[in-house]
Amino acid sequence: MFDFTFHNPTKIIFGAGKETLIGAELNAAGITRVLLVYGRNSVVKSGLLDRVMASLKAGDITCSQYGGVDSNPLLSHTREGVALAKRDKVEAVLAVGGGSVLDESKAIAVGALADEDVWDFFVGKEVTRALPVFTVLTLAATGSEMNGNAVITNAETRQKYNIASPHVYPKVSILNPELTHSVPLSYTAYSAVDAICHVIEGYFTKEPGTHLQDRLVEGIIKTVIETTDLIMDEPDHAKARASFMWAATLALNGLTPAGIGEYSFPNHMIEHALSAIYNIPHGAGLSIVMPAWMKWYVTKNPSQFARFAREIFGIHTGEAGIEALEQWFVTINAPVRLHEVGIPATEIGAIAENAEGLARQWGIGDLYPRETIAEILRLAV
Amino acid sequence: MFDFTFHNPTKIIFGAGKETLIGAELNAAGITRVLLVYGRNSVVKSGLLDRVMASLKAGDITCSQYGGVDSNPLLSHTREGVALAKRDKVEAVLAVGGGSVLDESKAIAVGALADEDVWDFFVGKEVTRALPVFTVLTLAATGSEMNGNAVITNAETRQKYNIASPHVYPKVSILNPELTHSVPLSYTAYSAVDAICHVIEGYFTKEPGTHLQDRLVEGIIKTVIETTDLIMDEPDHAKARASFMWAATLALNGLTPAGIGEYSFPNHMIEHALSAIYNIPHGAGLSIVMPAWMKWYVTKNPSQFARFAREIFGIHTGEAGIEALEQWFVTINAPVRLHEVGIPATEIGAIAENAEGLARQWGIGDLYPRETIAEILRLAV
Repeated sequence: MFDFTFHNPTKIIFGAGKETLIGAELNAAGITRVLLVYGRNSVVKSGLLDRVMASLKAGDITCSQYGGVDSNPLLSHTREGVALAKRDKVEAVLAVGGGSVLDESKAIAVGALADEDVWDFFVGKEVTRALPVFTVLTLAATGSEMNGNAVITNAETRQKYNIASPHVYPKVSILNPELTHSVPLSYTAYSAVDAICHVIEGYFTKEPGTHLQDRLVEGIIKTVIETTDLIMDEPDHAKARASFMWAATLALNGLTPAGIGEYSFPNHMIEHALSAIYNIPHGAGLSIVMPAWMKWYVTKNPSQFARFAREIFGIHTGEAGIEALEQWFVTINAPVRLHEVGIPATEIGAIAENAEGLARQWGIGDLYPRETIAEILRLAV
Repeated sequence: MFDFTFHNPTKIIFGAGKETLIGAELNAAGITRVLLVYGRNSVVKSGLLDRVMASLKAGDITCSQYGGVDSNPLLSHTREGVALAKRDKVEAVLAVGGGSVLDESKAIAVGALADEDVWDFFVGKEVTRALPVFTVLTLAATGSEMNGNAVITNAETRQKYNIASPHVYPKVSILNPELTHSVPLSYTAYSAVDAICHVIEGYFTKEPGTHLQDRLVEGIIKTVIETTDLIMDEPDHAKARASFMWAATLALNGLTPAGIGEYSFPNHMIEHALSAIYNIPHGAGLSIVMPAWMKWYVTKNPSQFARFAREIFGIHTGEAGIEALEQWFVTINAPVRLHEVGIPATEIGAIAENAEGLARQWGIGDLYPRETIAEILRLAV
């Protein structure tokens, strides 16, 4: 165990139909005017937006709508949202969507109270305040509903960078697992990969010996695998969708790393560099990067890989555990090689070059120079 | 999975020497005047109180001291604390001690803002406000440092009753595991029993099938057993004390029951009735009650008891799992029979009679009439 501070003040309201409570929650917080951020038309077609709007109306809350968030949310669209939030003098940002919508909403919440360009906060400026963020989640994956992280892509510079700040933890997040029943199986698979990756980064890169946290991680991974398998057979399996959703939240809400000391996010670092260039789903990038990284890293922490193999798959070598995870990715149709998403091996140099800057920003530049990143990516050819 | 709301806003600061941050944390919250509540002289003799006072002084915070909290905190002493808090117009209550000190501090925080007698809130009146509570924890066991519960004993009526309110979650809790190195092994054992009991109540009394939460519970139990064994061999085993402390916090911070639906606290119900009459440590009462209750309950949820046996002890029947837990209690010198704490079997009727009222208050009066409670207690003779 190492020293830590844990403070996660997000209120989670979990259950079918709970989105109708959003107006009352905003009322309780004294909010009268919000920017409602969403993505594509699915939330309109499904009737979710109507239900949310009705709840806002019942709470006498004025609402500016801002749709069109991309699955890798873009800085340009974020900047427009900031301008709108300022113009309409909103008091809060309400995100209705998946992790991308939540992340862009957090960025807008920061930009709305800043004189600087919002991108400044992604390249080093400290976030000192933000509008309160409220969320209605439609996709379980990123954990953004219960953490202080947001990732935005600057298409001009091909940088997919993040902020991490206590000021952007959502005040209230509403998790209705029924909203995820219609998530396509491909995206469900990517989400499973993403949740597993969130807990695996710390599990393998920390010092060994914090067994409590190991057990929390293993409980989350086993649940993600178990529920994903059920969902693949029966996409509207209510219990599985619900457990999957809460597991994905717990995977990145600060619980599993509390007390583990220093750790890093090498898989996310490489994947962000990759999907900043190729607009592929984050989880699809991770299912390619993760087995490759694990094969490269296994000799650096053999006891933890052996533990992973034993606890998750009931098998006895670290290498076999990696193989089992990769095979499971294959069974849920998550890509495990670059060519599966149309990236030729000749692009590895460009991705590695792009990853270098992020590795430096995340404090792991020494461990991950360009050549090492390329070496890892070659294991995914 | 069932609907739930999870909202735990307590900030945890965990690590050696962190008690020196308490002044700064109170400053950050705008507090200038506190009631410092503690128990016996150990916090004076150890120098902890001096360090806390120095931190308060550095933060220019005025402090009224109030010591003498009992290990089963008493209503009479709580009432005096309320009077002192009112007289000195304190803005917050700072608890320095174990669960008893924290619980009484929470009760004082409620009473300080109320016109009613503080006991009213323990027998049904809703808590609608309280002074902010800050804590420096010296004993890992009750989870009070990160939840909204407080238990107080009314010696006149022999009632050990509780409040549960979002208003008494501590704002900040400082957990320095080094402060627990000097906790006697007997109390460490009782604390281990308490933490295990906190997670077991929901695990066995909920409906089966919420595997994520089962895994979180099992991870906590395995950690408590593993670290307690290490501490019994080496009382100042720093890593074990630290993991034990955090496991005890997670055992009752709302994490493990979130999503499990309805469940109950029969072991705590019976134990509170017991220790309201006989002033024995809470954990010592629980190590007597729990195996007895499990032997009585095993046929009502056989699959979960089989799971418990398999996951915790690697054995294959529910009965064997109960036996293994009871034997483990014996190895750490926690009592498992009433006579070990000097309670003759002839007292069972009086305890069962006292428990009935609590069973009704906790909504399980139908399941636990007096005769059933007596039947369970006879398994501990």
